Amino acid sequence: MSKQALPVADVSAPACCSPLTSEPLDAHRAVELARVFKALGDPVRLRLLSLIASHEGGEACVCELTGVFDLKGPTISHHLKVLKEAGLITGDRRGTWIYYRVSPRTLRMLGDVLTLDPADEPAGVPA
Amino acid sequence: MSKQALPVADVSAPACCSPLTSEPLDAHRAVELARVFKALGDPVRLRLLSLIASHEGGEACVCELTGVFDLKGPTISHHLKVLKEAGLITGDRRGTWIYYRVSPRTLRMLGDVLTLDPADEPAGVPA
Repeated sequence: MSKQALPVADVSAPACCSPLTSEPLDAHRAVELARVFKALGDPVRLRLLSLIASHEGGEACVCELTGVFDLKGPTISHHLKVLKEAGLITGDRRGTWIYYRVSPRTLRMLGDVLTLDPADEPAGVPA
Repeated sequence: MSKQALPVADVSAPACCSPLTSEPLDAHRAVELARVFKALGDPVRLRLLSLIASHEGGEACVCELTGVFDLKGPTISHHLKVLKEAGLITGDRRGTWIYYRVSPRTLRMLGDVLTLDPADEPAGVPA
């Protein structure tokens, strides 16, 4: 896989970010957002994202990710590609390895979308 | 806002909620979380969730949801079932109709999981 000159911007991340609770989502935006949530809808991808995000310095070499799973390299690469195409991670090739970090902008956008209006929380709901 | 004795328990929602960025996600928790994100990974389900959440009073009758989409009733029912099984909405039958509302606890849990440590946000990243 030739990955020189990787884009760093979250070009595939949908633009910001009304909460789902504030107004009905339009069809186009729903398609964009569903793509990002679908990328998160897999246990291996969630674990990869978490491994990258919680790694020292906020980035992880692909060489540090493959040994964690009982999966072949190409399968891990496929999952990383899905996360990257959804704008959830960015990759930076340095020498032999690609280093991944999470995209703060996309995570923040998802958090904003899922934000609750305090008025939506019925009284008496346990925290 | 009618909020009489609506069920609020999210029995299927995974328990709380370390951010993905704080520590590697364990395999069991990843499976639980992936199920919820997968439920959000469909444009129709996202729009249904948004229609319910943003509806007056925070709840919507299934009779108010079906007309919005060019889809048959059973398809809408299937999507509502997926959202319900993922703990994202609750349903309450009153007379002929089922009334849905979002589960604040599950939305909050997902928001917590996606929360960024401020230290994870590189300086100079645009807001």
